This record gives sequence, structure tokens and C-alpha cells, in this order.
Amino acid sequence: MSQLPEQPTMTSVPTSADVARLAGVSRATVSYVLNNNATVRISEQTRRRVREAASDLGYVPHAAARSLRAGHSRMVLLPTWHIPAGPLHQRFFHALQSDLRRLDYTVVQYGSGGLDADEAARAWAELRPVAVVSPGGPALTPYGIDVLTRSGAKAVITLGPQPVDGAHALVMDQRVVGSCAVAHLLARGRRRIGVVLPQEPGLALFGEPRLVGARRTAEAAGAHVQPLPLRYEEESAAQLASRWRTLGLDAVFAYNDEYAMLLMRALQDAGIPVPGETAVIGADDLMLGRLLRPRLSSVRMELAAGQAPAELIDRLVRHPGGTPERHDLLRATAVPRESS
Amino acid sequence: MSQLPEQPTMTSVPTSADVARLAGVSRATVSYVLNNNATVRISEQTRRRVREAASDLGYVPHAAARSLRAGHSRMVLLPTWHIPAGPLHQRFFHALQSDLRRLDYTVVQYGSGGLDADEAARAWAELRPVAVVSPGGPALTPYGIDVLTRSGAKAVITLGPQPVDGAHALVMDQRVVGSCAVAHLLARGRRRIGVVLPQEPGLALFGEPRLVGARRTAEAAGAHVQPLPLRYEEESAAQLASRWRTLGLDAVFAYNDEYAMLLMRALQDAGIPVPGETAVIGADDLMLGRLLRPRLSSVRMELAAGQAPAELIDRLVRHPGGTPERHDLLRATAVPRESS
Repeated sequence: MSQLPEQPTMTSVPTSADVARLAGVSRATVSYVLNNNATVRISEQTRRRVREAASDLGYVPHAAARSLRAGHSRMVLLPTWHIPAGPLHQRFFHALQSDLRRLDYTVVQYGSGGLDADEAARAWAELRPVAVVSPGGPALTPYGIDVLTRSGAKAVITLGPQPVDGAHALVMDQRVVGSCAVAHLLARGRRRIGVVLPQEPGLALFGEPRLVGARRTAEAAGAHVQPLPLRYEEESAAQLASRWRTLGLDAVFAYNDEYAMLLMRALQDAGIPVPGETAVIGADDLMLGRLLRPRLSSVRMELAAGQAPAELIDRLVRHPGGTPERHDLLRATAVPRESS
Repeated sequence: MSQLPEQPTMTSVPTSADVARLAGVSRATVSYVLNNNATVRISEQTRRRVREAASDLGYVPHAAARSLRAGHSRMVLLPTWHIPAGPLHQRFFHALQSDLRRLDYTVVQYGSGGLDADEAARAWAELRPVAVVSPGGPALTPYGIDVLTRSGAKAVITLGPQPVDGAHALVMDQRVVGSCAVAHLLARGRRRIGVVLPQEPGLALFGEPRLVGARRTAEAAGAHVQPLPLRYEEESAAQLASRWRTLGLDAVFAYNDEYAMLLMRALQDAGIPVPGETAVIGADDLMLGRLLRPRLSSVRMELAAGQAPAELIDRLVRHPGGTPERHDLLRATAVPRESS
């Protein structure tokens, strides 16, 4: 059985023993100082001497060796897919990473495109994360949750449109987006509402639940919803616009602002007055939508939780084994402009 | 000195010894099979038995333990910053991750926002990556390169607008974008060319070299370039448009398509005919730019290399210590439409 390679394989790689020698302290002291262990009393002067010696030698602790010794890691793994994520998602990820780092976790993202769900779970488990915050949906199976838990993950959490059985869930329930858009259109007196379903790979994960929310809200008011498949291409939009009057719709929720801009242009080019004959609303509240004439109405989305997500993850890691929790993060507000 | 924790800390965590017992083979055989070691002859039947036993037990190898035993890791670290990256960048990252995985590397991204350059390098070094592919510029210093190399990284590579001394460089030279845009405007007979400098944090890294390229190409033709600071806000664009005629410009390269859409709308609202009085060109070739009237001219960017970037990284890892290499990836082509 091999030992931890505290002796460097390359003569130039500094070790904690080199730091201890230079600082005139024990290796245990070096470990306590550099791992910010607060349970041991070490003078500020000694801490400074250790840090300076580490800095002079260019020594940094070895995260994997430390977690092997400790029996657990501080790595939070954020698997990513090649799904075009909106600006909201990007900001959320950025804030989550900063907040987790402040709680002394190491956060890494892992691009999982091209792997199936079970392959992906095994690849994540090889990194022995203490927590996994995964897009849910098709990306995580009961088998995957089991593999991760057995490999030592204290918390397996989904972050996506739908929860997955057996995992904690940070839910961005896309139904509220469709529901909000349709409620706005109903309030404007519209009754026959098209709902765009984007045909690009991966987007059904968001488009389908937006349709479900739209339909539910429309039917509760006795109104009608019509799904409208659309590719993000001018030709696809022109085709839809050319048969628009046969559809008998007076409004459309166009999935998001980009699809709404595409469709509104096609409707205008086909001579359909917006909003006179058809009201249009998107989602994401992009600045570009305000540049159109008429200015594009939109649904603004915000992510909020009773507890900051990073603190929630930390709590689930420190108290593993409880019943799966569900936290709804997504809030939606209509932003009416001129197109609806 | 602690041993590798082959004995599980939780009784439910399966080990390679459990797999060996179930499959009726030695632990060495389990290791050879699950690590795809091709240098040892093992029958297909035995390989299948080992894989089935691992699958039944939910066992996956421990990447960190394996790299501690091997003395090196297969982790390629891609640090990320919170800079809004274009679609080109996202596609490139996705392809790079897939290609590196096919070469048996584990690719992880590490969000480094909020850390200074030296803190970031130490945080990366803790993960003991075999290669780091970092955004260059302010994000990597000679100290950082030294820390990473001493911690065992075989290749430190920048991926960004500018190379960094001492590291290999995959250069996306933004000057070619400005040069290409201005060459197009000159060919259209324009001589007094504004160049938008986006004022959002992080974008100077791209905006400044685009201006340098624009200026160089303009001056070589005896034409004039005027830097135009612009925030991504309607108010900022309206202010710029309100003093447009005092600037005496007949064209503008607006950094990218989003800023171009913003500025073109403001120019039109201020009564400046586009392209009659002022030609406008963006960059990124977004579909949305085609929806405007006039349709927006753009610069299309492509990333190309003589050698696939993943193979290049693999070669640099397998032959460390050579002179820093520079590979230029960015190609730019003007896409003329109606606005120029």
C-alpha cells in the first residue's frame, strides 16, 4: 500500500516539511495554519511566519491529500450541461460560487455534455465531492444519487425546473413564468394565446413547463392556449407568421425575449399589427427588447430563497441523511411595455 | 503518516477490495480494468465481470487517490471569470471539454471571481492540476505560473486576448476584430470612424485591443479613429447620439452586435440616418442583428488552430519544459448587411 507522497516526486516541488523547516515549526503547525484550523491556538506571529515561509517557497496545500487525511472533501461540484443558460442563471452561479468559497468550500464546475446520466454520476463520484448541485431533469437518476451518496457525498441537490426523487431540490419552477405571462395577457383582454415551444436541443426542459403553467392559468380563466413550435431561425418564424391568421390567436407568449424578437419581426413583416391584432410578450427582460418598436413586454425573473442557497447547501452537508427538502427559488413579474 | 483510506469511513462506501471479492479477482486487476490500463492483458470476460461487480456495488475509483498513487493527476483546470463571454467562447469551451475528456483528462472549471491573481493561482494549485488553461491578462502573473509549476502542473496555458510571459498562449487576438471592422468601413469609403469602448467591468480586456486594431488599420489608410466610451444602457446611448453631429464621424464600429443595436437605435431616434450619414458595424454576427432595419452589419469570429486545442494541451502536458508556444486562434470576417 502506498503512502501519501509527502516526499516530492520532482525535487523542485516544495512540501509542508520544507515550510516547517523554514518557519522553524512542526509540520502539524504548518497544517493547522494553512488549513485555517481554528480549534488550535497558535500565535499570530507564528501564523505569519508559516504563511511567509509558504509564500517564499511557493507552497500550497494539496486539497486531495488533505481530504484523504480528513476522510471527506470540501469540494462542491456543479455539473454543467451545454444548455444555453440565461443571464439570470449565470449571475446565480457566480454568486453561489463566491458564497460557497466564503464558507471554505472549493467549488468546481464539471462540463458533462456527451455523457449519459449514469456515466456522468460516476464521473462526478470519482472526484469525491462532499456535495453535488446538479441540473435536475434527465441529468440525475436514482442510480446516480446512490453512486454519489456511496462515494461520500453528504448532499445531492438538484437545481433546475423539476425535483428528482431522493435528492434535495432547489427548484426553478418554469411554470410560474408561463403562468405570469398568460395572466398578463388575460388582464389585457386576450383569450386565444399562442405559446412558443423552442425547438433547439435542451430547451424543452424549460419550454414544456412554461407551456404547462400557461395552459393552467388560461384554462382557469376559460381561455385557450395553442402550442407553437419554433426554431430560432428567421425562416421558421416567417413560416409561422405566414399562417398566423389561420390560427385565430390574439396573443403570444414567445418563450423568451429572443424568440419574441424573432417572432415579432416576422409578424410585422407579414403585416400583422402588434399589439393591435396580436399581443406579444417574452421573458428575461433583456435590454435589447426595449430597443424594438413597439417596445417588447417581458417577464422578469428573480431567484430568491428564504435562506441563501450557499448556507442551505452548507446546512445539508453538515446534517446529512434528512428527508429531501424542496426550495422554490423562481419569482416572475410581468413587465408591460408596448407590445401587449 | 496516514495511509490512503482504502478502508471506508462509512460502512456503506464500497471499496475496490469489495469489487475484487465479488468479481473473484485481485485488487490489482480491479485497478487495471477500471482505470483502462491497456498495458496489462486481461481477458474481456474478466473485464466484464469486474465492471459488473463495480456497477452492482456502485463503486467508482477515487480520482484523487489514484493521482496520489500515480504521482500526477489527469485534471485540466479551466479557471473562469465573471466576464460575459460571447457564444463563440461558450461553444469553444464546450468542445474543448469534450475533446479533453476523450483524451482521458478530467476537466473542471473553477470560478475565480473575487480572488486576486495570486490568490487564484494558489487556489488552483491546491487542486494539483496537470494543466491549467487560464484566461490571461491580469489573471495570471509570473508568481502564479511559478506556484502552479512547482505544485506539479506540466503545462500552464493562457487562453485570452494577450499572452503572458512564461506561459504557453492560445491567443484570441482581439485586434483582428477591430482591424476587420475598420477595413470594411474603409472599403465603403468611410474615413472618420468611431470605435465604441464598452464601460462594463471586464470588457476593457476585449475593447482596448479591438480599438488598437481599429486604429492601426485606419492610420495605415490615412483615416481617423475616435474612441467612444459607452455603457450598455439606453441613457448612455442617447447621450452619445445627442452629440453625434459634433463628432463629425461617418461610421462607427460598435464593439459588438449588442452595443451596435443599442447605438443604432439611439442614432435613429436622434434622427441620424443609418447608413446614409453614419455606417454601423458590430461583431459576433448575432441572429438578432438581422432582425433590425437596416439589418446590422457584423464581424463574424471563428476559432481555428493548426492543431486541435485539446491535442495541443495534451502534447504540452506530455512534453513539459519547452519554450512557451504561441498559437493564434481568432479569425475575423466582415459580414456586410444594410447598416454599413
